[in-house]
Amino acid sequence: MLTYTFEKHSGVSLYEQLYRHIKSDILSGRLTAGEKLPSKRTLAGHLEISVITVKNAYEQLAAEGYIFGVEKKGYYVNRVEQPPQTSVTQVLPEAGKEPHYLLDLVTNSISAEYFPFTVWSKTMRQTILEQDKGLLQPTPYNGAPELRRAIADNLKQFRGMTVDPEQIIVGAGTEFLYYLLIQLLGRERTYAVEDPGYGKIGRIYESNQVALRRIGLDDAGLSTEELRKSGADVVHISPSHHYPTGIVMPIGRRQELLRWAGEQEGRYILEDDYDSEFRFVGRPIPTMFSTDEHQRVIYLNTFSKTIAPSIRISYMILPPHLLQEYRKRLSFYACTVSGFEQYTLAQFMAQGRYEQHINRMRNRYRQKRDAVIDAIRTGPLAGRAEIMEQDAGLHFLMKLNTALPDQDLRRRAAENGVRLALLSDYYSIPENAPQHVVVVNYSGIELQDLHRGLKRLAVLLEE
Amino acid sequence: MLTYTFEKHSGVSLYEQLYRHIKSDILSGRLTAGEKLPSKRTLAGHLEISVITVKNAYEQLAAEGYIFGVEKKGYYVNRVEQPPQTSVTQVLPEAGKEPHYLLDLVTNSISAEYFPFTVWSKTMRQTILEQDKGLLQPTPYNGAPELRRAIADNLKQFRGMTVDPEQIIVGAGTEFLYYLLIQLLGRERTYAVEDPGYGKIGRIYESNQVALRRIGLDDAGLSTEELRKSGADVVHISPSHHYPTGIVMPIGRRQELLRWAGEQEGRYILEDDYDSEFRFVGRPIPTMFSTDEHQRVIYLNTFSKTIAPSIRISYMILPPHLLQEYRKRLSFYACTVSGFEQYTLAQFMAQGRYEQHINRMRNRYRQKRDAVIDAIRTGPLAGRAEIMEQDAGLHFLMKLNTALPDQDLRRRAAENGVRLALLSDYYSIPENAPQHVVVVNYSGIELQDLHRGLKRLAVLLEE
Repeated sequence: MLTYTFEKHSGVSLYEQLYRHIKSDILSGRLTAGEKLPSKRTLAGHLEISVITVKNAYEQLAAEGYIFGVEKKGYYVNRVEQPPQTSVTQVLPEAGKEPHYLLDLVTNSISAEYFPFTVWSKTMRQTILEQDKGLLQPTPYNGAPELRRAIADNLKQFRGMTVDPEQIIVGAGTEFLYYLLIQLLGRERTYAVEDPGYGKIGRIYESNQVALRRIGLDDAGLSTEELRKSGADVVHISPSHHYPTGIVMPIGRRQELLRWAGEQEGRYILEDDYDSEFRFVGRPIPTMFSTDEHQRVIYLNTFSKTIAPSIRISYMILPPHLLQEYRKRLSFYACTVSGFEQYTLAQFMAQGRYEQHINRMRNRYRQKRDAVIDAIRTGPLAGRAEIMEQDAGLHFLMKLNTALPDQDLRRRAAENGVRLALLSDYYSIPENAPQHVVVVNYSGIELQDLHRGLKRLAVLLEE
Repeated sequence: MLTYTFEKHSGVSLYEQLYRHIKSDILSGRLTAGEKLPSKRTLAGHLEISVITVKNAYEQLAAEGYIFGVEKKGYYVNRVEQPPQTSVTQVLPEAGKEPHYLLDLVTNSISAEYFPFTVWSKTMRQTILEQDKGLLQPTPYNGAPELRRAIADNLKQFRGMTVDPEQIIVGAGTEFLYYLLIQLLGRERTYAVEDPGYGKIGRIYESNQVALRRIGLDDAGLSTEELRKSGADVVHISPSHHYPTGIVMPIGRRQELLRWAGEQEGRYILEDDYDSEFRFVGRPIPTMFSTDEHQRVIYLNTFSKTIAPSIRISYMILPPHLLQEYRKRLSFYACTVSGFEQYTLAQFMAQGRYEQHINRMRNRYRQKRDAVIDAIRTGPLAGRAEIMEQDAGLHFLMKLNTALPDQDLRRRAAENGVRLALLSDYYSIPENAPQHVVVVNYSGIELQDLHRGLKRLAVLLEE
């Protein structure tokens, strides 16, 4: 008969103790497969515990498959394997840490003080009150209708785009939308990205293991000629403000690309419009999506750059025939953005707060950019740095007058507390890149440290 | 000389009107490539508008690439193409609509009244106050440390799992995590899913175009023998409560599968634990992850089922060697969940509210399940329906005594306002499935309509 001792004051219930004892006997082989366990009543009497305690322990063991019950007969031990005695110690790898820099020209962080936090949190509270339990219902696969409507209105008013809210698909970040697009357009197609370009985009296509071509740029942006030669079907571009060169693609090149897309079935242009809100002179450049007559352009944009990186809301706009395809094949995916944040953003936009915020940001970025450029032109780097910029976006280029190779430049700058992004970093073959060109991501620069940082750079160039 | 008329009271600025006129002349071919535009001063005088208006219009046209400036010479027309005159009318496809059913056994909706809305919204407000501008900062790639800590604590206390918060990766829904896993484990591997099984899982692998095998089940769940024969490397299972059969995988089969995984490099088990919180008798079944000695199990779970479908927060737990791999190759992906909801959930868990909520839900679901089962056993279907269930999860099986083929059964039930999910729907080859077995997803059933719904079913079976 099974005989166990129980700890009275261990805090572990009798049922749990009995369960553990029998389980351990089965795993150690003391109780063998096929062996019959004593009846609940017998074991209870033997161990001086209640029948219900034995019953609970047996039922748990049966639920986990250690024993099995046969009606009117009782419980029998199941066949299980003895676990190995050595336990693998799971040693966790260490996570890397970023050093701190005096001047960081790589990170385009958005200063929290620019964000209308009071309005946003008021809108959140309003959303809680107004939506109430509606917040618990999932939104449709393509996002909350309220948000899609607000996006369409905003695009109409400020971007001159006519879009049906049904064409909009909301997702948790542009990176996620690329994934949906690869599924929509097909893995068998060849994708093309800009070279130089924002590295993450190519990395995502690579991580998805689709055929990828890197297409060079000329003064007007991505080369249509190279694109033709590459055999790519889908091209991912950012015509309104290219990263990192800052090129705004002129209408002529846009037309060339649209023509390229229209020439053959299955060709598409992914228009990544991420930086278009921050044009400092004149009006925003019209999108390719709105000049496309052949349903070949998919438009993408994000709120992470304009509101806050912690807000993971992006969207894409599909031409009607792709929308039909999307509904058929991919609308089984649930929307990845929480209802709560969708409703809050919809409200924020519908009340005009979003556009107000963008206008304010645009002014502040313009001032910041002017201050940074002024500090470069008149400060320690005066005469050693040439600024190249196009009145748009959150970065510009600065060519340094130095003989240092890019790798040395970056390393020595870092040793002196200055973190540099170099244009050559964004080329697939860095040797093809113009040298000594710094990509100045200025939105996160602390102005009070700028002069000291530039001084360190100047000293370094003079060595 | 360019001559245009301006509308004084159109609400469109002079600058905008001039820009439109010139752009339209370029696109229509009235102004041809290479043609020189009049100087700003000349045109301003001619049109009797200010020089600054002309300057702004020229600069916008130059920014968009319609014209280009040559220093000290002036502006020239660029080469552009004339757009086709026919505009493709973009006809949007209609979105489908779901009919309304008296009794819906397919949708496992969570009743909003079960949710502790007051506590949740209070926690949200607290998060806004406490985190303040911290809400704007992006969380690390793997999720907010506070949330990962709370998840690890919860798993330790209620699931008996010892997990380092660093091993947890938070993402916007389990569907998204599958995508990350395919990238982590590799597209060249062969994936296996349960057959029958939850259809969406297989669909996601298919949509990702990876090799997929469907593995049959026996009484203990997924057949190890079939799995071996299939040549699959990665198997996706839900051992704690299989959908739709309800099978709880016994320890013996779990050990077999763990042995299978350990036998060869590159074999993995994805343990989808989505329903484990709702076990009505005894303790939760221990996870395979915690009995795995060889770092071959990846654990997945979601808060969409336990809190609300609109909350898109899921997580996976990686064994250490995969974590290292993940950091190297995939940590460039931004976390897809907004910081705000992560902090709110972390707080909700840390204050014990989550476990309290789960306990309350478990009781309510048990009551609901008992009421539904009682209504089936004693109501209009008495004697014509056999219930098969395992004291766990949000669904059970009901075998109907009828000669109607499954397709007819479903159609005729639908015509009578009853929506049925049938076990055969979940088989890749429906003919292999037991017939007339209804999958009763009971959490969304309206009890007041249940009797009428069952009556309609009973009438239909008697015809």
